[in-house]
Amino acid sequence: MNAADLGLPVAVPSTALFTDRYELTMLQAALRAGTADRRSVFEVFTRRLPEGRRYGVLAGVGRVLDAVENFRFDPAVLRFLAEHEIVDEPTLEWLADYRFRGDIWGYPEGEVYFPGSPVMRVEGTFAEAVLLETVILSILNHDSAVAAAASRMAVAAGDRPLIEMGARRTHELGAVAAARAAFVGGFTSTSDLAAGFRYNIPTVGTSAHAFTLLHDSERDAFRAQVDSLGGRTTLLVDTYDVTEAVRLAVEVAGKELSAVRIDSGDLLLLAHRVRRQLDELGATGTGIVVTSDLDEYAIASLAAAPVDAYGVGTQLVTGSGHPTCSMVYKLVARADGPGADAPLRPVAKKSMGGKMSLGGRKWAARRLDEHGVAEAEVVGTGEVPAELADRQLLVELVRAGKAVGREPLETARARHAAAREGLPMSATQLSRGEPVLPTEYVHGAA
Amino acid sequence: MNAADLGLPVAVPSTALFTDRYELTMLQAALRAGTADRRSVFEVFTRRLPEGRRYGVLAGVGRVLDAVENFRFDPAVLRFLAEHEIVDEPTLEWLADYRFRGDIWGYPEGEVYFPGSPVMRVEGTFAEAVLLETVILSILNHDSAVAAAASRMAVAAGDRPLIEMGARRTHELGAVAAARAAFVGGFTSTSDLAAGFRYNIPTVGTSAHAFTLLHDSERDAFRAQVDSLGGRTTLLVDTYDVTEAVRLAVEVAGKELSAVRIDSGDLLLLAHRVRRQLDELGATGTGIVVTSDLDEYAIASLAAAPVDAYGVGTQLVTGSGHPTCSMVYKLVARADGPGADAPLRPVAKKSMGGKMSLGGRKWAARRLDEHGVAEAEVVGTGEVPAELADRQLLVELVRAGKAVGREPLETARARHAAAREGLPMSATQLSRGEPVLPTEYVHGAA
Repeated sequence: MNAADLGLPVAVPSTALFTDRYELTMLQAALRAGTADRRSVFEVFTRRLPEGRRYGVLAGVGRVLDAVENFRFDPAVLRFLAEHEIVDEPTLEWLADYRFRGDIWGYPEGEVYFPGSPVMRVEGTFAEAVLLETVILSILNHDSAVAAAASRMAVAAGDRPLIEMGARRTHELGAVAAARAAFVGGFTSTSDLAAGFRYNIPTVGTSAHAFTLLHDSERDAFRAQVDSLGGRTTLLVDTYDVTEAVRLAVEVAGKELSAVRIDSGDLLLLAHRVRRQLDELGATGTGIVVTSDLDEYAIASLAAAPVDAYGVGTQLVTGSGHPTCSMVYKLVARADGPGADAPLRPVAKKSMGGKMSLGGRKWAARRLDEHGVAEAEVVGTGEVPAELADRQLLVELVRAGKAVGREPLETARARHAAAREGLPMSATQLSRGEPVLPTEYVHGAA
Repeated sequence: MNAADLGLPVAVPSTALFTDRYELTMLQAALRAGTADRRSVFEVFTRRLPEGRRYGVLAGVGRVLDAVENFRFDPAVLRFLAEHEIVDEPTLEWLADYRFRGDIWGYPEGEVYFPGSPVMRVEGTFAEAVLLETVILSILNHDSAVAAAASRMAVAAGDRPLIEMGARRTHELGAVAAARAAFVGGFTSTSDLAAGFRYNIPTVGTSAHAFTLLHDSERDAFRAQVDSLGGRTTLLVDTYDVTEAVRLAVEVAGKELSAVRIDSGDLLLLAHRVRRQLDELGATGTGIVVTSDLDEYAIASLAAAPVDAYGVGTQLVTGSGHPTCSMVYKLVARADGPGADAPLRPVAKKSMGGKMSLGGRKWAARRLDEHGVAEAEVVGTGEVPAELADRQLLVELVRAGKAVGREPLETARARHAAAREGLPMSATQLSRGEPVLPTEYVHGAA
């Protein structure tokens, strides 16, 4: 696939302007100073999880691969940079030829992560790697925030399907990425057609209150919907009186009615009442879908209620209180001079106010206890200890500028479910707590 | 302008898939039932502001105009809808010819709003208006959330410039829209080059810690930056020791150094200390830029500190605790039959669990007290009272499908500043409170 993976219905030629201006000014200064071609290692990591969260969920990796491959400066972009005097002529010439030719390793999509996990490692010259900071962080910070919320909701929902319905609550293209991240985190389907088009995620949806209000009666509305969509549809039953609407729904659609949807009121109470009514009407196979301002706690509170599916919007696409992750993109090692073979020197900003970074090119592995349950996130520099060699987390994503780590979205989704399954039980508690794995640092010979 | 205003470096042909599936299934059912061409009025409003907020800020209106004009179903999209059996053949044929031919009125961009304010009103047939729900809500909910945070930060910053630096914390295209909304809310510039390209917002940026770490010494890094960018640049002084870096910065760049940037530590303490040091070094004209996890409260706490500009990222693009608004798109009136002249009948969902909607096509006006200060948001149906006739808030945005409400972004920015200025003083308190204006409802003859 060659098109920029922006979640667009159409391909977009370039991602090069999803960049903070300082990346280009640093490039210009480094080109002039002769330091631009020093081999450099940048790492993406977070210093902390959102308060109270037990684990993070990495999402957006597939989108990063496309963004990197499509990071090119076309003539219109170069003209903009020239006209606004953002960079000088030698830099413009350098940018015209730019493509990333370095290597990227990272945690595969859907994997869980913890404070300090080197979820992505970008290696190349300083010049080629520094330019990718903003677009990589945008994608990973956004998508991982949604995936983490989705994962918690999936835990709360158990085996019941989760429908992503948040498009209207977030940026129209953020919504497409959110539907994708939600799928990785465990959601089943989406209401967003662009996400269906772009990522082949199953789409669902039948009707809103407006459809009932358009018609002269609720009966007319139900009749119109069933005539057009058939009995295997979901009727929205809370526009006027729920009990009357459920009665009418079964009358109009028959006992084969697929489901009724409740979008307001006391969902716990209503779900029980509607279930009883449906059963009394003989519509024992008709499901109940609930969709009113749900989050993982509301979903969990409905675990014992006769609910068949949850539709989640706002709280999903806004990361359930944590709409972004705090991932950063830091230079951790660089050569003293030019050339691919110059030895790397670990570098790090001095700690002040908690903004500590750990220098050096890192590996990561997840250590298991004797029962096969994860017990630590081990992050180190230098040699990987032999006992952790087959538990390493970073995989090759881009080799010499070419994406080699593409995979179907279903693979990332399955990986996430497996990774979560491998964590200690307390990972699935919704209550606030510490990260479920400690991060241990091992400093080896470089 | 004809390209979809998606904040993209390139034009995108269609916004039609930024749509929830149920809009298309409702369309199909209404086409079959013969109700699709009933004249309908949809309104966008919110039932509440985010908790504690005094006013809302409408942003994204300009983007809505482009999204509506570019809402077309091209062959690739129609093929997708057919292959996935999302709608039937007659509906596909109808969609192939679709363009919105109705009218849109609304609050102009930058205007403030309150619970119940009809910020946008979409009129047309049910079929043509129902399709726009998701894309309109996505844009307004996202952009208005960012603009509201920006406005509060602008109040806190007073006359000092605010730099938008949040691209890395949100979806890469959400970031472009966020930079735009921040500008409307009072920000001065952005780090995001795509926002500069697309909306001509001034861009800024010089260097990150990586640039200092790339070089063999801080002196080398400062030298490289000044050699390339000149003395009118901003040097980042907190990579190692701030005092030493400030000394070095003035030594390398001279007293004409534009500014130094502090990105970590106790900003209040550091700003005072660095100011004193700069003055002692004779660099009295060198400014101080601070950029570390700021929000409106942190900005306010630095009001008495010698700070010259604020860079704000995470808290801006995530709406400072409220990353979305709760705007909804509701059918409020519709005709009983076909035809443009059929009388409109107010409709509304029955209240349950607080989800009340008020039926009827609405006007809105802001009533002033004897000092010219706003004292109420008046929302009504029917005739506008004579004394409010010249205080009406809705303006014409789209006439018979053609956008007539486009304006430069600076106009929206100035409007917001004026609108905020016209509110009672308590609007600018950052502390939690009630909406600064009550919403009064007036029911006139329809």
